[in-house]
Amino acid sequence: TARTTVTTEEPKSESGGLVLIKNPHLDTMEEDILYHLDLGTRTHNLPAMFGDIKFVCVGGSPNRMKAFAQFMHKELGLEGSGEDLADICAGTDRYAMYRTGPVLSISHGMGIPSISIMLHELIKLLHHAKCRDVTIIRIGTSGGLGIEAGSVVITDTAVDASFQPRFEQVVLGDVVVRSTDLDRDLAEELLACSKEVPDFPTLIGHTMCTYDFYEGQGRLDGALCSFSSEKKLEYLKRAHEAGVRNIEMESTAFAAMCGLCGLKAAVVCVALLDRLEGDQIRAPREVLREYQQRPQRLIAAFIRRRLGLHPPAGPALPSSN
Amino acid sequence: TARTTVTTEEPKSESGGLVLIKNPHLDTMEEDILYHLDLGTRTHNLPAMFGDIKFVCVGGSPNRMKAFAQFMHKELGLEGSGEDLADICAGTDRYAMYRTGPVLSISHGMGIPSISIMLHELIKLLHHAKCRDVTIIRIGTSGGLGIEAGSVVITDTAVDASFQPRFEQVVLGDVVVRSTDLDRDLAEELLACSKEVPDFPTLIGHTMCTYDFYEGQGRLDGALCSFSSEKKLEYLKRAHEAGVRNIEMESTAFAAMCGLCGLKAAVVCVALLDRLEGDQIRAPREVLREYQQRPQRLIAAFIRRRLGLHPPAGPALPSSN
Repeated sequence: TARTTVTTEEPKSESGGLVLIKNPHLDTMEEDILYHLDLGTRTHNLPAMFGDIKFVCVGGSPNRMKAFAQFMHKELGLEGSGEDLADICAGTDRYAMYRTGPVLSISHGMGIPSISIMLHELIKLLHHAKCRDVTIIRIGTSGGLGIEAGSVVITDTAVDASFQPRFEQVVLGDVVVRSTDLDRDLAEELLACSKEVPDFPTLIGHTMCTYDFYEGQGRLDGALCSFSSEKKLEYLKRAHEAGVRNIEMESTAFAAMCGLCGLKAAVVCVALLDRLEGDQIRAPREVLREYQQRPQRLIAAFIRRRLGLHPPAGPALPSSN
Repeated sequence: TARTTVTTEEPKSESGGLVLIKNPHLDTMEEDILYHLDLGTRTHNLPAMFGDIKFVCVGGSPNRMKAFAQFMHKELGLEGSGEDLADICAGTDRYAMYRTGPVLSISHGMGIPSISIMLHELIKLLHHAKCRDVTIIRIGTSGGLGIEAGSVVITDTAVDASFQPRFEQVVLGDVVVRSTDLDRDLAEELLACSKEVPDFPTLIGHTMCTYDFYEGQGRLDGALCSFSSEKKLEYLKRAHEAGVRNIEMESTAFAAMCGLCGLKAAVVCVALLDRLEGDQIRAPREVLREYQQRPQRLIAAFIRRRLGLHPPAGPALPSSN
């Protein structure tokens, strides 16, 4: 290939809880337009809007991230129903963003390029807003590997399609290799929280991140497929032997970018199916909807615990129906 | 790296105008659920819904693709205002899809993984619906390279970040290299149509496709940037010397997948800025909105010409205001 250089970047340094922007050019800019969020340093008072944010939750679907913000609103015991939370990025349809209390909920679309654009602008937003001690969690959907549909996987290591813990980023035509470490303590804390939501299985495992949903994940049901069912299963079993328990499309870039910028990060995804059993997502929409609420309920338990709130008493949560 | 095999696939074969599905497994499936479109072969009569589609237009933003469908509705002289066109994928928020006459308009989100999921399911949809002689066009936004902001670029060749006309797809952990050829005659036909919309410049050039908007396109204004302004300009000038006239994030995958499946494909993107002049998209929203209508107006002229319709008489087009 014409790519020439491969480098590995230094690990993150200490930041006193602030977000680390690794870009010396940014300080010289008079204005920073966060184009895909429809926000900017001159048009918005970012410290006033976001300075007290402590938890950032991201996920692919805008509707799901709105539902999560509404759910968190109730879980935090805040006034009002939360039904009228406004989309902070209403001026654009690239992403949707909601806040309730110290929690920010943002959609990122599907795939590494889409989450990468959002993370660049979100991380600059947290920097401009002078946020401190932010925890960021991706709550998503995935395909499981040798686990029951509906299981929730907390990622210990995000790996690429060769099962390696790395994210390859092309910069000026050259490949830069980045670490995909996630916060081990945070993963263990989340696993401990899962005892509070015992009606579904939660486990820790590796998460494989691919650039494609069909051929890239060994599916036989895309418009293109040049391999046999045997080759597919051989690949998925190798992934399972390497410790992979689920497959999605954003975790390596998420882990790499958050790690470089000093954000404590976790990935918590529900498995919509077991890929050793099939390729098509066949569960009824109602079942899938309940599956998608499981990471939300786990993260709500985690945030409540961090904030010293007891689980809300009274009627069952809407999401548990 | 742990990737082991590099292969180049055979060119497309003749199809009698039908869409070529290159997947022998698909015929053995009793049902095909197009999960991210919320459509399926058992739940929907795809030939009745889509069998007469001749033009498929795709673009990143769901709002823009809805506006395009409404605009085409008027351009085709169809009854009603077109304001009430329904989202065919209303059951999911992953993509939005509208149809008017023989034109299908679909959003694909941002980046190769996102457009790739949509194209797998769209191509299967066209196959299940037994569509014939479909032309597919991506109408998008991009950064220009040495061209005036607002210029429209018709892509002759989609190239990667090393300026090579190839798309690398990871399949079962191995790299497969695919051609990114687009239809030359279609590009020339579109350039000829641009004479009918003379109030903005249209040109043919190479389009560079990247996996990242910030570091991957040499921007100095992301959360991460490890290179100098000089290195950035040196890279962008090399791209310009290689024939690149604009940069976006979907064209190589689009060209490769459509080419393999026998779809005549074109990429038509407006440049929102000249990247040799800067990185941030600073034009007012109103100006950007008008820029984004330019590829739509060109494609409307093309579809009208293909259908033998004269340009509509009477008041000026709303989009030209």
